[in-house]
Amino acid sequence: MPDTMHRIALARRPKGLPVPEDFAYESCEMPAPGEGEVLVAVTHLSLDPYMRGRMDDVKSYAPSVAIGGTMTGQGVGHVVASNAEGFAAGDLVTGITGWASHAVLPGTELRKLDPGTPPSAALGVLGMPGFTGWTGLREFADMKAGETLVVGAATGPVGSMVGQLARLAGLRTVAVAGGAEKCRLALETFGFDAAIDHRAHADASSLRAALAEVAPDGIDVYWENVGGKLLHAVLPLMNVHGRIPLCGTIAWYGGVEGDGTDHLPGLWRSILVKRLKVSGMIIFDHWDLYPQFLTEVGPKVAGGEIRYLEDIAEGLENAPAAFISMLQGGNVGKQVVAL
Amino acid sequence: MPDTMHRIALARRPKGLPVPEDFAYESCEMPAPGEGEVLVAVTHLSLDPYMRGRMDDVKSYAPSVAIGGTMTGQGVGHVVASNAEGFAAGDLVTGITGWASHAVLPGTELRKLDPGTPPSAALGVLGMPGFTGWTGLREFADMKAGETLVVGAATGPVGSMVGQLARLAGLRTVAVAGGAEKCRLALETFGFDAAIDHRAHADASSLRAALAEVAPDGIDVYWENVGGKLLHAVLPLMNVHGRIPLCGTIAWYGGVEGDGTDHLPGLWRSILVKRLKVSGMIIFDHWDLYPQFLTEVGPKVAGGEIRYLEDIAEGLENAPAAFISMLQGGNVGKQVVAL
Repeated sequence: MPDTMHRIALARRPKGLPVPEDFAYESCEMPAPGEGEVLVAVTHLSLDPYMRGRMDDVKSYAPSVAIGGTMTGQGVGHVVASNAEGFAAGDLVTGITGWASHAVLPGTELRKLDPGTPPSAALGVLGMPGFTGWTGLREFADMKAGETLVVGAATGPVGSMVGQLARLAGLRTVAVAGGAEKCRLALETFGFDAAIDHRAHADASSLRAALAEVAPDGIDVYWENVGGKLLHAVLPLMNVHGRIPLCGTIAWYGGVEGDGTDHLPGLWRSILVKRLKVSGMIIFDHWDLYPQFLTEVGPKVAGGEIRYLEDIAEGLENAPAAFISMLQGGNVGKQVVAL
Repeated sequence: MPDTMHRIALARRPKGLPVPEDFAYESCEMPAPGEGEVLVAVTHLSLDPYMRGRMDDVKSYAPSVAIGGTMTGQGVGHVVASNAEGFAAGDLVTGITGWASHAVLPGTELRKLDPGTPPSAALGVLGMPGFTGWTGLREFADMKAGETLVVGAATGPVGSMVGQLARLAGLRTVAVAGGAEKCRLALETFGFDAAIDHRAHADASSLRAALAEVAPDGIDVYWENVGGKLLHAVLPLMNVHGRIPLCGTIAWYGGVEGDGTDHLPGLWRSILVKRLKVSGMIIFDHWDLYPQFLTEVGPKVAGGEIRYLEDIAEGLENAPAAFISMLQGGNVGKQVVAL
């Protein structure tokens, strides 16, 4: 076992889109597991949009990353040494390892994986993002066959799960994604009924016209993980009694571009007049459902009924660049870093 | 029976707060009931904030009042002549009569009242406003004893029902109202645990500080019938998993004063981070629950467990002035016009 490990620390708080200088690649002493703890060698690391929020120093549902602290995130790896019951060297495990080559975690915060599990599946389609899509639809979308669902970032690991589950439930599904290639993937790989390239539309009203064409009966469920232009495009198309599970606002992570207009009163009035239900959700509230998710969705993934895409960057030192690219839509499918 | 009737028509669409010139008091020929119809002589007319929305020419959950059309609204009156089964001259009835001395309505759109019912109760505490409060709490508030509820326009017929039902359910109740006298009524007549005079606070942050003092455990349910400054004050005080039944935005009926900032992204982020549930509601979706409401709440009103206040203006010709005053908070309790 080496006597040093590597990690990516938060060097400073980003303004808007992060730049490489906001991160620092560092070596430090290899930690030893204490009583009840496990030392894990990370092989795969998940990169997710929510991490951008953790880089800010604002009160949120989870603590910010401190300046100099290790960037947070879920990893998959092998147990190197264990002082925790139920874990032995060589076990494949997952937990919140952070952006690091190694991590010491309490056994209670690790989950053992079936040795055959592909790491990208553990981090994506059967990990937090896939579980987010399944849970949000189950708890907050009240889907009915024949309705229409719109989801942004539709080829990402949350959006593609949402679209596929909604299609299986009999809904008309409309993907919004960035670029022609992602739209092709939305249709061909994930089976959406229609796909709109938001980059082909300069403003919300152009995007809205395109959505109206492919959602002629209006929108019943808008899965919100984007905000910004897409929200403004969708809102006037929402049907009475529509549902909006709200699980992210990636368009605004880099800051908000104002046009001098306060859009809050209009939004509030739309929610009232259309009797919409808007439900904020954070997946960490719902881990008790995770076994049920695996039981229900695992076989559909194994059988190919639910498909997934992954985008794998190589090397911990390249995690910041991959993360910055992902925030701009540069990835195709679930973004993973292989160490 | 006179051969003319009187009505208040919409003379022109108001800009912001209506002025008397937006209305016209007119005489017209007394109508005769056709087959299945009933002629009603109106004795009491309800004035409600939602009517301001009907004066605008925008797509909403109900049609706008046309220029030259009779102002819409619920009335109570006596049957003068009936061609509808189940109705006879002298019956006390309620329906959407409009702002008028007489109305012809299909029997299917009228409801017979117990002859002893006070008209203000039929239009207020046991009418649409009271029913709105009861339904919204039942369907969208998920109240738990020990939680804290905040409601604006707290001495109005919706707010006072909301506050009293929440208190009976074991919640800590905080009233927001305009002026010292309404705050006194909120505490003494309606039994709120605390009352805040929003007029004593120039901006949202001052109002927020006052709310924080009387809601030391945060806010679990915010009954939204106001919007504006109160919404901005409340939002940062909402607890995780809070609920916002959204049934009106009276602060914005007169137009929106912008400060050049788009508050939508911040609102959206609060809903996400705090996992709030925001539910738009319109009472017209819920009439099937009305008999249950009367069964449950009627005895509580008769027994004095739920109290109500009324503000009665005299004469149809004075309805516009009473309405304009009500929109500025000039009324105390349910606003009714006695004809």
